[in-house]
Amino acid sequence: MMLPIEDARKLVETTVEFVRRAGLKAPVLERGRVVTTMPIEGNTNHIGIMYAGALFSVGEVTGGAMFLTSFDMTRYYPIVKDVYIRFRRPATTDVRIEVFLAESDIARIEDEAAEKGKADYILEGDIMDANGEVVAVMKGTYQLRAMEA
Amino acid sequence: MMLPIEDARKLVETTVEFVRRAGLKAPVLERGRVVTTMPIEGNTNHIGIMYAGALFSVGEVTGGAMFLTSFDMTRYYPIVKDVYIRFRRPATTDVRIEVFLAESDIARIEDEAAEKGKADYILEGDIMDANGEVVAVMKGTYQLRAMEA
Repeated sequence: MMLPIEDARKLVETTVEFVRRAGLKAPVLERGRVVTTMPIEGNTNHIGIMYAGALFSVGEVTGGAMFLTSFDMTRYYPIVKDVYIRFRRPATTDVRIEVFLAESDIARIEDEAAEKGKADYILEGDIMDANGEVVAVMKGTYQLRAMEA
Repeated sequence: MMLPIEDARKLVETTVEFVRRAGLKAPVLERGRVVTTMPIEGNTNHIGIMYAGALFSVGEVTGGAMFLTSFDMTRYYPIVKDVYIRFRRPATTDVRIEVFLAESDIARIEDEAAEKGKADYILEGDIMDANGEVVAVMKGTYQLRAMEA
């Protein structure tokens, strides 16, 4: 069972207070495709560029968002295992990240979790500023886990 | 020139709004040794454990805190190059991380930055919960950069 998109959006944007107060939005929530954004306003550091933790969060949240759009939330739940983020240049505008999960991967991950109780999924993407420059690259390893019967 | 400790603490805890609103504290700010903490209150996710971005932030901030306590802020400034964080178990309490930089490393890094204009420094540590369990491990690569003359 998949959530209606507006319910998924509300979960991604508002359920985690840390994320909500940063102003994160999830404008695209599709099966296999997620876009999240982070405003520069309220998220700058002492020299006026986006704080590293805000860049991390806009990337990390894609793991939960992809779970909501692509997997059966009545049978599985997600955890984040690790995240690597490399900062390439200062972000001075709102930023955006788009991540994908192929249909074949979604099927494989869900099959593996059904069989073994868990299955990893990896999301990676570029965090881009408003000028289309890559400000950071992130790679997260998440795990789909089957709920206890 | 080093900052008085209370000025350094104020910079670490309050200058970056994202960090301040999360409630991060820096109880130990010594040359070569920094401790930062993050409260569970206000930083939980939808299932009551600390959100990944709060764990990231308590780790990442050590890079700036170590800069303030260990390097000459009138001659250098720090940037974060990359961070890897692995999540080992859910955090359900306040958390803490302690990182160190040896005196010999501080000298080498400052010498290299003076000579080449920049020098990397790596901080790694365990993020521990109130029961002494490791909830996450982080490794950050930072760079000390010489200010333009």
